[in-house]
Amino acid sequence: MPKRSAPPPPPAAAEPVTTLHDVARLAGVSPSTVSRILNGTARVAADKRQAVEQAIERLRFKPNLSARSLRNGSTRTVGILTQEIESAYFARGVRGIDDGLRDSGYAPIIVPGHWNPLEEAERVRLLMARRVDAIAILGGSLSNAEIAEFARRQPIAVTDRSLQAPNVLSFEFDQFEGGRLATQHLIELGHRRIAHIAGLREQADAAPRKEGYLRAHADAGLAVEPRLIAEGNFVETGGIQAMNQLLDSHLPFTAVFCANDQTAWGARLALQRRGLRVPEDISLVGFDDLPQSAFMSPPVTTVRQPVYEMGLAVAASLLQALGQSTRVAATFPGLSLAVRESTRRL
Amino acid sequence: MPKRSAPPPPPAAAEPVTTLHDVARLAGVSPSTVSRILNGTARVAADKRQAVEQAIERLRFKPNLSARSLRNGSTRTVGILTQEIESAYFARGVRGIDDGLRDSGYAPIIVPGHWNPLEEAERVRLLMARRVDAIAILGGSLSNAEIAEFARRQPIAVTDRSLQAPNVLSFEFDQFEGGRLATQHLIELGHRRIAHIAGLREQADAAPRKEGYLRAHADAGLAVEPRLIAEGNFVETGGIQAMNQLLDSHLPFTAVFCANDQTAWGARLALQRRGLRVPEDISLVGFDDLPQSAFMSPPVTTVRQPVYEMGLAVAASLLQALGQSTRVAATFPGLSLAVRESTRRL
Repeated sequence: MPKRSAPPPPPAAAEPVTTLHDVARLAGVSPSTVSRILNGTARVAADKRQAVEQAIERLRFKPNLSARSLRNGSTRTVGILTQEIESAYFARGVRGIDDGLRDSGYAPIIVPGHWNPLEEAERVRLLMARRVDAIAILGGSLSNAEIAEFARRQPIAVTDRSLQAPNVLSFEFDQFEGGRLATQHLIELGHRRIAHIAGLREQADAAPRKEGYLRAHADAGLAVEPRLIAEGNFVETGGIQAMNQLLDSHLPFTAVFCANDQTAWGARLALQRRGLRVPEDISLVGFDDLPQSAFMSPPVTTVRQPVYEMGLAVAASLLQALGQSTRVAATFPGLSLAVRESTRRL
Repeated sequence: MPKRSAPPPPPAAAEPVTTLHDVARLAGVSPSTVSRILNGTARVAADKRQAVEQAIERLRFKPNLSARSLRNGSTRTVGILTQEIESAYFARGVRGIDDGLRDSGYAPIIVPGHWNPLEEAERVRLLMARRVDAIAILGGSLSNAEIAEFARRQPIAVTDRSLQAPNVLSFEFDQFEGGRLATQHLIELGHRRIAHIAGLREQADAAPRKEGYLRAHADAGLAVEPRLIAEGNFVETGGIQAMNQLLDSHLPFTAVFCANDQTAWGARLALQRRGLRVPEDISLVGFDDLPQSAFMSPPVTTVRQPVYEMGLAVAASLLQALGQSTRVAATFPGLSLAVRESTRRL
């Protein structure tokens, strides 16, 4: 037997357990009222609430998740795994879900996953430990197998991927078509030397958007100049760097299709720094239609991803899966082009 | 006794209760391993996790919040009440808290309150029902009394207000000083006719920023032209409208201090539409230093609110209040002016 330098700590004394019924008795209300207050999801008259809160205080009651959730397994919450709280694209999607849940009696609980599959899986487990009734997973890098496994416990909606599995609803936009639309628009305006600032290679959306750019050229019988394709990183700094690189190459071009709006904003600033005007000298197209793009100088032509509407549809589908009727349709529009002032006829 | 049209429903049959210990026995692991897996906050070897998940499946075990939280009252989570998921200012603060919690073993759970005091209170109760260990409340419209009451259950950090109460930590920037700094900068550049587009009257930040604008004038011995003060609403559309109104008044001005960056972006677009250049014709100052302002054309001079750093400090303070050491300091810098290219000497 190994030697011990100190005796083991004594087992913790079992404290007498205060139950929800004790609280109800002291407060003079029904146990179900206590449970509704603890749940935090239903409105209760102020005097009853106060009585219950005082009883909790006096009895030093540590509320468990709630009697309601213990009884019927419903916590009236929907977990949302987003990636980066500050990403305008994801924030728009979360807001759509948030608005779609409004007045449904379900509250959203949001956790960030940072495109890190280990962290994302931990966060989903954290949501499941809090017994959310359903989960929305926005983008990210969980495997399809993991998501299918998680969906054995509650319905899951996933965005930005196509996944056929029981209890899983998937929502995505056609990124290839978006890249094709953006480039076709520039070709129709007479542009023939069109640069492309691509997205971060590791992210799934970058490749199909570039494929769409190539396809629009092929459809129009135009050759692509490979040196006019620069690599960005889906944020402004990458757009600045890639545009500087394109300008330094001294290859002629009259338009640029950027893999997302943030890239386009950076590219637009780099052009201004070199004394080039948008759209007089260079036409510029972005991708996403983040709210800000409509207020840039000039307002940016971009491929509109109706991610807010997708969020509404995610909420509606999950509510339907939970057996709740919903006034919001579980469908959403596809991609379209928002033509503004950053593009013009050559 | 009142007549009943139908007999009352029979009481629900009590199901045999599967406990965490049953799951542990079947999976061949300790109850504490099951509890760690259910908590979703600790890493466990993949084979053990799989054994536990299979046992949960077979026993149809409905996990309660977790054995851990039942035992010591800690769920290793910090609740964050934000207002609008899409607000860039709030998103930056939430990101600071999120980053500040990283590697602490505490995970953030985020809920939106939409500046609606009833909804905010419900969301805080929802967090408390999930037994978060601490709560951060970003802005919003809860009363100080409500927050002090909530703080009887767990530590609370509040931002954008000053609140002295037990178990409450408050964090705020000096909005008056920010308005003064912005206006003083324009006065030092030689501007004498300086317009102001104010913020939404109902929001607490609008008045002190305007007071700072007035004070800077007084300090410099300059009179304020009241008709050069227009009302905005803290978003782009209000900036456009207010700038159009200022231009339509035909009162001369050479500079404008906008109550926040989104207002400044809108004002800048309105100026461009009228053929006025920034900064050649009109100097423009914003407030917040949202990430986007550095990438506008031209990059916007603005009052920097280090809200990300405030978020880090919020996380550090809450961790300290929970008895956790932290490598992040619970202090944060004050407001400062980020001078960029939208202002110039008259």
